[in-house]
Amino acid sequence: MVKKKKFSKITLSTSSKDRRVISIARQIIEILSSLEVEISHDKSLLSLNKSKNSKLLSTEEIVTSSDLLIAIGGDGTMLNCSRIYGSNDVPLLGINLGKLGFLSDIAPNDVTTSLLEVINGKYLTDKRFFLEASIKGDKESFIALNEIVIHSGSIAQMIEFEIFINDSFVYRQKADGLIISSPTGSTAYSLSGGGPIVHPELCAFVLTPMLPQSLTTSPLVVSDHSEVKIILKNQKATLSFDSHNSLLLSGKSEIKINKAESQLNLIHPKGHDFFEACRTKLGWSSH
Amino acid sequence: MVKKKKFSKITLSTSSKDRRVISIARQIIEILSSLEVEISHDKSLLSLNKSKNSKLLSTEEIVTSSDLLIAIGGDGTMLNCSRIYGSNDVPLLGINLGKLGFLSDIAPNDVTTSLLEVINGKYLTDKRFFLEASIKGDKESFIALNEIVIHSGSIAQMIEFEIFINDSFVYRQKADGLIISSPTGSTAYSLSGGGPIVHPELCAFVLTPMLPQSLTTSPLVVSDHSEVKIILKNQKATLSFDSHNSLLLSGKSEIKINKAESQLNLIHPKGHDFFEACRTKLGWSSH
Amino acid sequence: MVKKKKFSKITLSTSSKDRRVISIARQIIEILSSLEVEISHDKSLLSLNKSKNSKLLSTEEIVTSSDLLIAIGGDGTMLNCSRIYGSNDVPLLGINLGKLGFLSDIAPNDVTTSLLEVINGKYLTDKRFFLEASIKGDKESFIALNEIVIHSGSIAQMIEFEIFINDSFVYRQKADGLIISSPTGSTAYSLSGGGPIVHPELCAFVLTPMLPQSLTTSPLVVSDHSEVKIILKNQKATLSFDSHNSLLLSGKSEIKINKAESQLNLIHPKGHDFFEACRTKLGWSSH
Amino acid sequence: MVKKKKFSKITLSTSSKDRRVISIARQIIEILSSLEVEISHDKSLLSLNKSKNSKLLSTEEIVTSSDLLIAIGGDGTMLNCSRIYGSNDVPLLGINLGKLGFLSDIAPNDVTTSLLEVINGKYLTDKRFFLEASIKGDKESFIALNEIVIHSGSIAQMIEFEIFINDSFVYRQKADGLIISSPTGSTAYSLSGGGPIVHPELCAFVLTPMLPQSLTTSPLVVSDHSEVKIILKNQKATLSFDSHNSLLLSGKSEIKINKAESQLNLIHPKGHDFFEACRTKLGWSSH
Repeated sequence: MVKKKKFSKITLSTSSKDRRVISIARQIIEILSSLEVEISHDKSLLSLNKSKNSKLLSTEEIVTSSDLLIAIGGDGTMLNCSRIYGSNDVPLLGINLGKLGFLSDIAPNDVTTSLLEVINGKYLTDKRFFLEASIKGDKESFIALNEIVIHSGSIAQMIEFEIFINDSFVYRQKADGLIISSPTGSTAYSLSGGGPIVHPELCAFVLTPMLPQSLTTSPLVVSDHSEVKIILKNQKATLSFDSHNSLLLSGKSEIKINKAESQLNLIHPKGHDFFEACRTKLGWSSH
Repeated sequence: MVKKKKFSKITLSTSSKDRRVISIARQIIEILSSLEVEISHDKSLLSLNKSKNSKLLSTEEIVTSSDLLIAIGGDGTMLNCSRIYGSNDVPLLGINLGKLGFLSDIAPNDVTTSLLEVINGKYLTDKRFFLEASIKGDKESFIALNEIVIHSGSIAQMIEFEIFINDSFVYRQKADGLIISSPTGSTAYSLSGGGPIVHPELCAFVLTPMLPQSLTTSPLVVSDHSEVKIILKNQKATLSFDSHNSLLLSGKSEIKINKAESQLNLIHPKGHDFFEACRTKLGWSSH
Repeated sequence: MVKKKKFSKITLSTSSKDRRVISIARQIIEILSSLEVEISHDKSLLSLNKSKNSKLLSTEEIVTSSDLLIAIGGDGTMLNCSRIYGSNDVPLLGINLGKLGFLSDIAPNDVTTSLLEVINGKYLTDKRFFLEASIKGDKESFIALNEIVIHSGSIAQMIEFEIFINDSFVYRQKADGLIISSPTGSTAYSLSGGGPIVHPELCAFVLTPMLPQSLTTSPLVVSDHSEVKIILKNQKATLSFDSHNSLLLSGKSEIKINKAESQLNLIHPKGHDFFEACRTKLGWSSH
Repeated sequence: MVKKKKFSKITLSTSSKDRRVISIARQIIEILSSLEVEISHDKSLLSLNKSKNSKLLSTEEIVTSSDLLIAIGGDGTMLNCSRIYGSNDVPLLGINLGKLGFLSDIAPNDVTTSLLEVINGKYLTDKRFFLEASIKGDKESFIALNEIVIHSGSIAQMIEFEIFINDSFVYRQKADGLIISSPTGSTAYSLSGGGPIVHPELCAFVLTPMLPQSLTTSPLVVSDHSEVKIILKNQKATLSFDSHNSLLLSGKSEIKINKAESQLNLIHPKGHDFFEACRTKLGWSSH
């Protein structure tokens, strides 16, 4: 492995409530203190304020100055840090408190070894794209790393929608909803809906209807250069981004989904293997 | 076909907003007027009040006096009339304004012929059971003809539940929800969730997890003598009955689902065929 | 648990090639020798001939004289013994050399304890039906415990068939084949084809098309009182019974599948639990 | 639409047994005779030999001299002509005798109009890749346009295989077989196996296990730059290419599947729409 850029301004963050977060954070600070590295943390780790080796920074300061964000938690924390920091070009490295994650892959026991290697330039980079949704008549746009879901928003109620790809009509369907997933999200909610697993290096969107009334519309995989347009007529619906934030729609809605301009730089220790994560997390057999 | 009991006290009802409802109702009244039949309607057909041949009755009067309820609409109207009248032992016959339904199978063009035959005792009876749910700590119970759904109640949020059949633990799953369907409901929402089609004469429940996190829990078919118990821990959830009424749950909930004591008597004209309805409504190939 | 009939004429059989079979067989003979039990074995265990405590019997002798057959192996051995002995009314008990099976549920470590209890009348009985197929123009009929499969018999070739239930036309489909499964088989090949899991106490057949050309024909569950008829026109096809024996068909074929008259009496030690077997063998989550 | 290269040396071929083939071929010859076009046919259309306007050519002559091959039949004929001519760089245009095909999209009624436009340079080009399989120890390699299937070759028998992508181990599975499909094949056999629909412009392979023993291995979509390796241990198996030709394997086999160097140039009349073909052929709803 070729040595890559070394990291020298490193920020810690979390969105986990696991009790071990703080001790792992302290362990990381200790490891990094012996190196020529500036260490900081965001407001999610206020209890580190007493540490003279790490200073509290605002989101803006982190985005402009940090060259690595270490997220302590699991895939949920990684998703959260992706939206805040990753979409603003700060590379992300994940420490996994639970089982191996798809995004976050350093086990607590390996923190010292893996971290020293990564800081010294022995690491893999793994670029992931964000999905971006815009709603006709609304100036704001919204991003998601895993998936965007269009849903009736209430139980036992279907929505009826038309899908267009690059302005070509695809189909009309009545269903609980529609999942538009990136390859990153293909191992998450989309998989539960019957979608395929898409390797992260493939530049594609997956469209999977949720509990569709007609069984003929299999999941559809299209190029990530596509513009996906969904039209809803006179219905209430909810748009959800990575199961995190959501948006209410009503009347006639036209939602456009594209690949976002910004992309996420994931940092992995050497030896990272997408299929190993699949085997571990999805129960694939290896013998 | 053996001639069966003739019907002599017949009530008309609808829950459809189709413009043709009233003219079909008038046509039925005209057909029945030549026979020795007492005709009535419920408040869903107030515009028939001017007709001297049909009188308005209350739900209670219908339940105690009518020996046949004719539902004008489609499967939605049939579901609605099932809950109000069918569960109180009034047999149901459906006039279908749209395409052939699973429950409602007389086409507008066949009203005269089919109705005369049915009234004169040439018909098929088709008994369907209701699902009944009771919640621990709640005296009321709730019925559904098609399905009972347990759901997070909000978009992009999973619930975690344990299933027991006759007090034997089945599995724990994290999913958008769980559908418990009767054979009658197996061609409806349960089918969209990946459930099998269960012939109406089979005495069974189908349990189908909705977008489950683990892909190993296939739909499960158990005897309708089973008691299905679902336990939720410290979560908000919603119970829905035939997509019609719903109930909010919170904290630790224990839901028991059994076959209800009451059952529905569907009346079909001769020649009724469940598989023909499947071919028409589900797009099965016949050639 | 009420004490049931004690067993006194017990036969051992296997179809496993596991090296441990003989030592388990010897262990069983030793356990049974201290009881008033006649012990025998069939030709699958010829190496027991030297044992003075067990004598070799023919199939006919076993069928007429044994009141319990102990199958040493796994679910495959149980399937095999079911066809030979079980269909002739000899109850079956399974010793499982591998992991917990659906049919065979005594672990090698529990042989002594479980066997003594069973012999003394502390056991559960579990009746399973056989599927029976007859081909028009052929006097012989064929049985299967798990499933009957109709298949093109060669790779990458579809068959086209029509299904009738009790002479009602169901659908026509083009597919690799069709699986007709009993509840017992619903956790085996039928499950791989997308079929539901059917509780063993439910009296039902499952019909699952294999790689069907049209995606609209979901698995179908019908009463085991049904007669399933499959018609093939001018094609070669193969019928397979429990993946064990098979039959070539050509020209126009008409296959009828019913519940067989004979049934299997499975014997389980107390505490047997169908859903526990599902959790263990299918990877269902329990926590 | 920009005018493209005009075609001047055109060959007709078929593999259909439809009676209309010859009259369509004569109609095409008549249309083309008025233009400055050299017309030929291959041995599949021997009955055209009497026509002085078309001469019989060998495969080699066609491959070296023709600049357009018109395939008369359906998607089956297109697949066949793809292997013979398309893989040797002759562009293909399809006349569809039946319903709209995915590859073949000129209806008999539109032959005159569509053909004149295409010949005059008003057409769309649509490049598709071939899959190429090589077996360790075998110098020959084999191509397929739709899919390569690895299968036990006999009914009711599973194979056990390991998959590697670019030498990374993916999973081990026991199944009836494995389908490796191109986007072109994603609407064919792979779809019946539960695979997603992949837009033809996406550069990807789909791997779909057929009736897998474990339900956790969802279809997998990987970049077409990947090398897929499948290892079978001590088993008989069959490799099938587009359901056309097949190859027997035994002992330990190692199969490598890559994108072939050659690619297919499909020619479509203007207005060709992939999703329209999906709606027509797969029964997707449009209203």
